[in-house]
Amino acid sequence: MCGKEKHSLTLVPDYKLWFERDGEYIFGPGAYAILKSVYEEGTITKGAKKLSMSYRYAWGVIKKIEKKLGITLVETFKGGTEGGGGARVTENGLKLMELYSNINKAFNDILESSSHLNL
Amino acid sequence: MCGKEKHSLTLVPDYKLWFERDGEYIFGPGAYAILKSVYEEGTITKGAKKLSMSYRYAWGVIKKIEKKLGITLVETFKGGTEGGGGARVTENGLKLMELYSNINKAFNDILESSSHLNL
Repeated sequence: MCGKEKHSLTLVPDYKLWFERDGEYIFGPGAYAILKSVYEEGTITKGAKKLSMSYRYAWGVIKKIEKKLGITLVETFKGGTEGGGGARVTENGLKLMELYSNINKAFNDILESSSHLNL
Repeated sequence: MCGKEKHSLTLVPDYKLWFERDGEYIFGPGAYAILKSVYEEGTITKGAKKLSMSYRYAWGVIKKIEKKLGITLVETFKGGTEGGGGARVTENGLKLMELYSNINKAFNDILESSSHLNL
């Protein structure tokens, strides 16, 4: 065995993106996933279930951000197509999702071209 | 007061970038800062001091990564210009710094164009 073996190491880059306000953590990947899931599923119950979360947890995450920002991200309503009510992501909620998603996509594009780094 | 006030909210995006190997966390902003500081200062003592870290902590971070990857990132030597010895970031260490720094720069460029997000 030689003391100076040639190593071939592959490293995989990953990242976490979040939004702050006045230095306080506000919105990250978890909250984004919840908003997206509620948007896609149309109810908080189904949106949370899809992510294997409890309704209570998912709703709590949304409410916490709404309180910090003083805006509404998700509106619930009664009735609807299935009669059981539903949840609607507000304009501000959609805007927040879009801001997050745009940066995420740009970051992912960068990582795609360097998804495996060799030392 | 109106119930539908227009809010102007400014959110600031931030991120953490790291490298994994086989799903294990290997290298992140802390280790990058240490390598960079050792590279710039020329000794582990000075490099650690610049970051308000102990020699022991900084060296421990480097050694842990070296052990995980099976390569040397920093070599120490005796003598040198000041006679007290020093530390040299190896070729692999420089490569690792460069890989990290390149992605960091690309991410920062993206955030520069969206450093303040308005809802």
